[in-house]
Amino acid sequence: MATQSYKKLVEHYQSIDNFEHLRAICSWDQATFMPSGGADSRAEAMAELAVHLHKLHTAPHLAELFELAKDENLDTTQQASVKEMHRTWQLQTVLPAELVKAKSLAGAKCEHQWRIQRQENDWHGFLKNFEPVVALSQEEAQIRASSSRMTPYDAMLDIYEPGMCSTQLNQLFGDVATWLPQMIQTAAQDYSPNHTAQYPVEQQELLAHELMALLGFNFNHGRLDTSVHPFCGGTSQDTRITTRYGESEFVNAMMGVIHETGHACYEQNLPQSLAKLPVGKARSMAIHESQSLFYEMQIARSPEFIALLSDRASHYFPKYAAINKTQNLIAQLQRVEPSLIRVDADEVTYPAHVILRYEIERDLINGDIQSKDIPQLWDLKMSQLLGISTKDNYKDGCMQDIHWTDGSFGYFPSYTLGAMYAAQFKHTMAKTINIPQQINSRDLKPIYDWLNTQIWQKASLLSTQDLMVQATGTGLDVSIFKSHLQHRYCKA
Amino acid sequence: MATQSYKKLVEHYQSIDNFEHLRAICSWDQATFMPSGGADSRAEAMAELAVHLHKLHTAPHLAELFELAKDENLDTTQQASVKEMHRTWQLQTVLPAELVKAKSLAGAKCEHQWRIQRQENDWHGFLKNFEPVVALSQEEAQIRASSSRMTPYDAMLDIYEPGMCSTQLNQLFGDVATWLPQMIQTAAQDYSPNHTAQYPVEQQELLAHELMALLGFNFNHGRLDTSVHPFCGGTSQDTRITTRYGESEFVNAMMGVIHETGHACYEQNLPQSLAKLPVGKARSMAIHESQSLFYEMQIARSPEFIALLSDRASHYFPKYAAINKTQNLIAQLQRVEPSLIRVDADEVTYPAHVILRYEIERDLINGDIQSKDIPQLWDLKMSQLLGISTKDNYKDGCMQDIHWTDGSFGYFPSYTLGAMYAAQFKHTMAKTINIPQQINSRDLKPIYDWLNTQIWQKASLLSTQDLMVQATGTGLDVSIFKSHLQHRYCKA
Repeated sequence: MATQSYKKLVEHYQSIDNFEHLRAICSWDQATFMPSGGADSRAEAMAELAVHLHKLHTAPHLAELFELAKDENLDTTQQASVKEMHRTWQLQTVLPAELVKAKSLAGAKCEHQWRIQRQENDWHGFLKNFEPVVALSQEEAQIRASSSRMTPYDAMLDIYEPGMCSTQLNQLFGDVATWLPQMIQTAAQDYSPNHTAQYPVEQQELLAHELMALLGFNFNHGRLDTSVHPFCGGTSQDTRITTRYGESEFVNAMMGVIHETGHACYEQNLPQSLAKLPVGKARSMAIHESQSLFYEMQIARSPEFIALLSDRASHYFPKYAAINKTQNLIAQLQRVEPSLIRVDADEVTYPAHVILRYEIERDLINGDIQSKDIPQLWDLKMSQLLGISTKDNYKDGCMQDIHWTDGSFGYFPSYTLGAMYAAQFKHTMAKTINIPQQINSRDLKPIYDWLNTQIWQKASLLSTQDLMVQATGTGLDVSIFKSHLQHRYCKA
Repeated sequence: MATQSYKKLVEHYQSIDNFEHLRAICSWDQATFMPSGGADSRAEAMAELAVHLHKLHTAPHLAELFELAKDENLDTTQQASVKEMHRTWQLQTVLPAELVKAKSLAGAKCEHQWRIQRQENDWHGFLKNFEPVVALSQEEAQIRASSSRMTPYDAMLDIYEPGMCSTQLNQLFGDVATWLPQMIQTAAQDYSPNHTAQYPVEQQELLAHELMALLGFNFNHGRLDTSVHPFCGGTSQDTRITTRYGESEFVNAMMGVIHETGHACYEQNLPQSLAKLPVGKARSMAIHESQSLFYEMQIARSPEFIALLSDRASHYFPKYAAINKTQNLIAQLQRVEPSLIRVDADEVTYPAHVILRYEIERDLINGDIQSKDIPQLWDLKMSQLLGISTKDNYKDGCMQDIHWTDGSFGYFPSYTLGAMYAAQFKHTMAKTINIPQQINSRDLKPIYDWLNTQIWQKASLLSTQDLMVQATGTGLDVSIFKSHLQHRYCKA
């Protein structure tokens, strides 16, 4: 048969996906319902599963199957499928097992101690564990680069954003850096709510479910729970999102739910016939983030949606209807204010946090700077981009994120690329759909149908570049993101 | 090293246990939180895991390791450990793969159609699917028997109750059958609550958690959730129990919680150093059931505990304090009434349901009767034991249970053996602990400490016979069970 090797590859990757399913559900359980005393034995079970998955990903017979599949008579989808399997295989097999193990151990140690050291603002203690992580990540980057003719940093970036490179990022982020500091100054405004309120969690949950339904979440294939850090997990057929509730405030929990619903709708609407294969997965981290940010930033922080939110809040929290008037929620949801912490940043200042991290991690992985240089660079770039000093404040400066502690270099750009992609999708969608009117009439179906057709159903069948060109007529265009921010935040 | 093969066996069975951990958590999720649309992909993932576990259980190098371990210098615990590994290995490897597959397919088909056929009282439709299940189970029983010199039925019984045999069961159950019908007549009484009430589920949950804490459940290593069929799942370090709540009634949900808490405390208190090995697991199905029935029957249906329950009910449901007076709850919880359905049966009539199933499945597997004879035998035995006819009523007669549909012959005796063991544990415990007084003072610690020392910590280190002798001074003694029933139900 002409596609025999391809079929064997399909079987193998479907089998991998079955074990990934178990990992996804048990990880979700770990973050939501597992009692703390279950942690040790869960860690052992997950480690065993990771070893098994690694074995499957690096099975010796795969190399031959990929060779044989080259000569088979495959259709376009099958070719794209093999391409993504091969990419997965390369990412998993290129590193020597000892390096994987050494990085995993160094990363676990660094991350573990970071949780205390950050609280204690202990940069020098952290540096001792961090330097080996950087050294091993540099080694990883060089090995990945040598097999792919990229720069070391680009090889790391490629794990999360296939097709993206630092030449393009330098251009995109360099452009943003020229106008963002001025825009932040223009848009910045004080926001200080001076009221106290009590929002019962049960009511917040009802509102969250209503918003999820409005945004197209399929409750037959997913659920909402609570966890310390909100996330979207589970599988395409059973997508689990979480949020966290505070009683004095409901807006943050709702924005979290809306953000994760964006991720979830992407997962739920991946093409089911390809669901268990690499080609049937989300295109990249940035495209994933573009979907969550499309919902959170492009839709949910628009004046029309905020008006809708205000109305629903008055239904669920009638006591605080005055506090939650549209104009008050706009003041809260569209405030701009330079701050130290990335995860708390608003839509305008967020890119500054990402650009500075990108510049530092790029130079670090390429060997152009050293770990010990980071605090000074951080302080300098924070001052330039946001006008804030972080001198001697490592805790709220270069030690605030978990990403670098285990060597996840190359991930940060995805956040701001996602914001840019989201703005571009919105820009194109607005040519054929009256988005404000759809929100006003509380019918978001045309909006998520567009996303479904243009992005969700495409999974990894196209490169990110082709996906963007087919959906929006052009590659990533940073001027659209700039216009979006100007339009929303620089009205005066 | 003198224990090299033993150590390899330990590693192998610990690895199996890690995958069993994933299976336990995902099964729990399936019964509690999984949205219905997730069922298909979950089934695929679980099937993949089952195949993987079968591979591990039947790994070719195990035979040699068991041979080598025989000559190693093992201590008593290690010897018991190898014995239980070997038992597990034999149970898994003795059957040819084709038979396992054929039985699995026939069982799945029979069970699937049974769900409809039972509703439609369609015995003849059921019989068509059931006969192949019986034939394959007979084949299984013969293969298991031939490798162990037992009768075919005893070989099936041995899966669930190692050490038990039908000679002993005939004696035990034969004894019960001589006095039970008369006792049922003496004890039977009408019970018909004639009130309506509304018990909010949130309050029932609070009461359930209080009762679990009282009974020694460790919430750091487990949790309570809801499911259609109550069960105890998860792992020893993370034990998940469930119940189901009705709003018009709270007593059944509480009895379910108490029953599952008995299972859970056994699991939570298995010796942690052996937790991942066969020797560290619960001794048998009957001993497991003895722990749930100890809590439910010996403790929770005692007058002292019912008084306690009445008091706590008046706290959580003050509106219905009069309805839930001790005497009313006693009337409900100690009622005796012959009925058609095993799972709804009371403590006195339950053994009758088990004895008739035992006699039928024993003769069926040994080839002494045929599947088509079952309805007539069922009707006869129901008349003899409970004075109820099931003629032409297959639905509430021989088609009521799921056990036989997939060929789980040999399981039913565990229920009544468990009740007998529980009565015997209570009898011994009462010699050194004033159980009514402990319940009255709401301090159950001496009670569960006794169970912990005598049973839970013993795991599978001893045979059931040795466990009983060490805990109670004698093997199973049915007269203690009889006295217990007489004392509670035949006071007049």
